[in-house]
Amino acid sequence: MIIDCHGHYTTAPAAYTSWRDAQQAAFAAGDGQPPYPRISDDEIRESIEESQLRLMRERGVDLTVFSPRASAMGHHVGDESVSTAWARVSNDLIARVVQLFPDHFVGVCQLPQSPGVPISRSVAELRRCVEELGFVGCNLNPDPSGGHWTSPPLTDPSWFPFYEAMVELDVPAMVHVSAVTNPNFHATGSHYLNADTTAFMQFLQADLFTTFPDLRLVIPHGGGAVPYHWGRFRGLADMLRRPEPDESVMGNVVFDTCVYHQAGINLLFDVIDVDNILFGSETVGAVRGIDPRTGHHFDDTRRYIEALGLGEDDLAKVYERNVRRVYPRLDAMLTKAGR
Amino acid sequence: MIIDCHGHYTTAPAAYTSWRDAQQAAFAAGDGQPPYPRISDDEIRESIEESQLRLMRERGVDLTVFSPRASAMGHHVGDESVSTAWARVSNDLIARVVQLFPDHFVGVCQLPQSPGVPISRSVAELRRCVEELGFVGCNLNPDPSGGHWTSPPLTDPSWFPFYEAMVELDVPAMVHVSAVTNPNFHATGSHYLNADTTAFMQFLQADLFTTFPDLRLVIPHGGGAVPYHWGRFRGLADMLRRPEPDESVMGNVVFDTCVYHQAGINLLFDVIDVDNILFGSETVGAVRGIDPRTGHHFDDTRRYIEALGLGEDDLAKVYERNVRRVYPRLDAMLTKAGR
Repeated sequence: MIIDCHGHYTTAPAAYTSWRDAQQAAFAAGDGQPPYPRISDDEIRESIEESQLRLMRERGVDLTVFSPRASAMGHHVGDESVSTAWARVSNDLIARVVQLFPDHFVGVCQLPQSPGVPISRSVAELRRCVEELGFVGCNLNPDPSGGHWTSPPLTDPSWFPFYEAMVELDVPAMVHVSAVTNPNFHATGSHYLNADTTAFMQFLQADLFTTFPDLRLVIPHGGGAVPYHWGRFRGLADMLRRPEPDESVMGNVVFDTCVYHQAGINLLFDVIDVDNILFGSETVGAVRGIDPRTGHHFDDTRRYIEALGLGEDDLAKVYERNVRRVYPRLDAMLTKAGR
Repeated sequence: MIIDCHGHYTTAPAAYTSWRDAQQAAFAAGDGQPPYPRISDDEIRESIEESQLRLMRERGVDLTVFSPRASAMGHHVGDESVSTAWARVSNDLIARVVQLFPDHFVGVCQLPQSPGVPISRSVAELRRCVEELGFVGCNLNPDPSGGHWTSPPLTDPSWFPFYEAMVELDVPAMVHVSAVTNPNFHATGSHYLNADTTAFMQFLQADLFTTFPDLRLVIPHGGGAVPYHWGRFRGLADMLRRPEPDESVMGNVVFDTCVYHQAGINLLFDVIDVDNILFGSETVGAVRGIDPRTGHHFDDTRRYIEALGLGEDDLAKVYERNVRRVYPRLDAMLTKAGR
């Protein structure tokens, strides 16, 4: 069984994205939330079957851990009420996808984060998504300001109330930023990767996982710059009199395989223990084209993994067992279904 | 001949760093610049011979392209007058190192950047360092705010007056940030790498090198996350209808080899054309310890390069010919000296 831990609903029906525009316009005008449109099951089916599910079938992916479009989370937009309403409709839409395609999708939620608003205010939506909608994890934005980095580091105690809820509900978070308003950064080209690297270094510097031994975090995009600079991070840990990152961080942190060329995937598996790597593609996502050098989609990450020549056991870890370990609610769900 | 393109004077005499403290205290108190201390040639000799030069000899490095400590540039500190005085004494100190060890060091300058101050105000110090002190390049900080990224992207026309001066003087810049005040970032652990990735993506998005075909920029730390995510950048270029990065960026941009483990160096050379890689170590710098797995210093990057098994021609490019091409004033100097 092949599980993609990192898929976003980037092909959601136009009525949903139009509502977001209307919501922003209403906020700017000082009006209340606009009425949410009726979206039919057929519209959802079509938006999935012709894109995400088609790609999954072509690539032999059985199940995708699916969340709202990351760049559209836009936590910097509006205020807490705007983020709350947007998270709610976005998560409800994911729940409908899961309901329509229960064999192929499992939900991960967007949080109603807003700059300066305590993260404890996101616990209720996490709980609703996990307990009522059957979601198995969440995307946690370390920078709800959209590229101005005005929140404290993820190791700051102000984040702890959320971690407590995650541990209680037994769900992991993917550390995932959203769109960026700072013109220095390109969302998928630099902001995402920078956030991944930033989060890892924060974890390396602090004792977060001593405080929360059961906390599990996914750093996407192959861990940002971390595997390529693994020696730098090991050396910095040494200079800062911290334990080796394998010891202090990698018991609680995993990377996905959203690295879009063979040499990058080779490095990832060369440097990072196979237990810490979850298959992911970020489809339908950041990079949609076909690599003229290979004739295949850049984001068809399964091809790169297949070319590694891993043993069956390691392949099973990367494709299935690691993600079931990190997302125990997914594992329970699959076990119950006899998968 | 082996030339290290990336060394910082991190072991400068205490009197120099104490003056910086006094300068900051004076600024805070509203006083003028404190008197600069007398630093003897012996103090400088000792600070070099026992650290940078000892390491160079141990590692077989003949010459280092040497600049003031990057994390101490602190462009966010004080105001323009503070940065101007600090850049001047820092560059003068480098000039004295070069004067004392002309066979082993060549100077690269720090700029008097300050947040919100036009970059054209840094041209005079660049000109002084190149024309009067014999320096061959500069370190250009894309984020003088120290981690708040308040300046426009490097491709914005507001930077052009400086590029014009660089082209006129025929000197390259290393894109190098400094210390960071934003607690989300660790200077050498995330801010530096993020800045490298950010700068590359800015170059990929714009036509800077069409406007300045003779502009040359060094992205340090192995290009940040770029080689590891080379497929992502190629795919993004495709999505943004930009030319391949090899075509639009790599004619004017080179990476150094400040990547502190074998797998990372392997990837760098696997992905990036050997003409675009300059030997660099960032000594005495970010990571000073010994890797217990290898028994050698993390930052002894020559070992990783030697282990690649490159042909003589490629080795000569990485160690000498590329840096002489990118820094023509260095080449002229060496040629004149019969080296």
